[in-house]
Amino acid sequence: MIKQVTIVGGTHGNEFTGVYLVKKWQQQSALIKRESFSTDILLANVKAYDKNCRYVDCDLNRQFKLADLENETFCGEEHLRAKQINEQLGPKGNAKTDFIIDLHTTTTNMGPNVILPEKGPFYSQLAAYVKMQMPEAVIFCDANYDSAIEHHFLSTIAKRSVLVEVGPVPQGVLRQDVFEQSEQLTHILLDFIDFHNQHKLPTLPKTVTAYRFVESVKLPLDDQGQRRAMIHKHVQDNDFKPLHPGDPIFRTFDGEDILYQGKTVVYPAFVNEAAYYDNNLAMSLMQQVELTV
Amino acid sequence: MIKQVTIVGGTHGNEFTGVYLVKKWQQQSALIKRESFSTDILLANVKAYDKNCRYVDCDLNRQFKLADLENETFCGEEHLRAKQINEQLGPKGNAKTDFIIDLHTTTTNMGPNVILPEKGPFYSQLAAYVKMQMPEAVIFCDANYDSAIEHHFLSTIAKRSVLVEVGPVPQGVLRQDVFEQSEQLTHILLDFIDFHNQHKLPTLPKTVTAYRFVESVKLPLDDQGQRRAMIHKHVQDNDFKPLHPGDPIFRTFDGEDILYQGKTVVYPAFVNEAAYYDNNLAMSLMQQVELTV
Repeated sequence: MIKQVTIVGGTHGNEFTGVYLVKKWQQQSALIKRESFSTDILLANVKAYDKNCRYVDCDLNRQFKLADLENETFCGEEHLRAKQINEQLGPKGNAKTDFIIDLHTTTTNMGPNVILPEKGPFYSQLAAYVKMQMPEAVIFCDANYDSAIEHHFLSTIAKRSVLVEVGPVPQGVLRQDVFEQSEQLTHILLDFIDFHNQHKLPTLPKTVTAYRFVESVKLPLDDQGQRRAMIHKHVQDNDFKPLHPGDPIFRTFDGEDILYQGKTVVYPAFVNEAAYYDNNLAMSLMQQVELTV
Repeated sequence: MIKQVTIVGGTHGNEFTGVYLVKKWQQQSALIKRESFSTDILLANVKAYDKNCRYVDCDLNRQFKLADLENETFCGEEHLRAKQINEQLGPKGNAKTDFIIDLHTTTTNMGPNVILPEKGPFYSQLAAYVKMQMPEAVIFCDANYDSAIEHHFLSTIAKRSVLVEVGPVPQGVLRQDVFEQSEQLTHILLDFIDFHNQHKLPTLPKTVTAYRFVESVKLPLDDQGQRRAMIHKHVQDNDFKPLHPGDPIFRTFDGEDILYQGKTVVYPAFVNEAAYYDNNLAMSLMQQVELTV
């Protein structure tokens, strides 16, 4: 039974959509109320939001491994904030919050996504319900797919959680379409939890198509560690479209194509995400999978 | 006669396209050479680029009014850098650089633009030549349209100059299409200067359609100074499309439409530009004009 749900916005300070949705629901709390549970809201990284940046010292959404939460060494604003949030919503492993919905946006053309931090029958049902209500939504199965307890995401404070991830929208910008898709996904998730609690879920399909993270691809560097290529037009904006062995994936500044060297078809995601340039990541490669409901 | 041209990238540190074009031309300088003049390149705001932000203390591209360049009060990194650049390329009013091409990008759907800092026969010819070579390019006539000498743009150090402004691309991201459009526009501008110097311009059309800046529109605020609306879907991505009196322009977080109250048709530009949220600017309103060549 899920008794306590928290919706989080502003885990990344320059992802405005979640922040403004939380502000909206502060004013209009009836919108996120459901019969069988309580709903709270939280602005996670107000300092980063005030500076219009992703984070002040380090990425808040990478600080929630149990070991990191228990580490006493202070290593920046976000480490401190992670502990505060863990105290407020958790503690992780024995949390007072049963479900967290963490609202994110991406600069990439991924559309509306629900990111699942782990697998299991509950999440397959959730995925099936989301796809029934919003067929254009993408089910994104994260890397740490077997268990959320050692995951570094904020949402994994709670026993169960998802990230809502919608794009494209530049950092520090509100778009009506992305705002409305994020709002719609949140309502679908709240409805799902309510129906799940009350054993009133409709008949769900037996399988759901999803995408599972396989690996990250880095931007190619030269001998001096400088980027020597950009993401190829062939891949740009084509998140979740098939990428075949031998397809162009990068274009060097000398005008040459670099081809994808994999052996099988993959589906890129987070293609050219602004936030990932820090780590020189070009994109994620995903596998298409069928979840059994 | 234009003898010295400088191409500037990175005036805004998180507009990567210009930075990477300058890096490309550092390696392949033959690409920007023309017969009748010398071409230099400059990375304008390296400190902001290193931090992946628009600026460190204040917007570098607003520091080039003569009075500000002569002001001895130190008011931040960019003020200092403006004086250095003015010494290197100028001094403004008697500059050793005859023409500056300053490379910018926008998060908005404006496509490839050439921004003219002032009017006159030279600029009308330039606009006509650009439109002949790249019909999809937009000619954008800036606010300070009568004289560039008191303009605050970096490029106005030189007697003549343009901004190349291409979008959409998020801040801190390289897109192949935007990179190539910016490169193409730069080559067209260099060719124009070369033909102009050598009196070898082709026959130009007698008029060119352009857009002239009229006014900025701010995001609506509530009594507490908080934003209460976002840009309406009807306007989002529709830069340079007609906006009629009575058309929706904003959507409040309560779900109500705010209508455009102007008396005449206007053409929005910089619609939902990330960099303009600092000043709460929603968009620029433009007039369609015909330049006589």
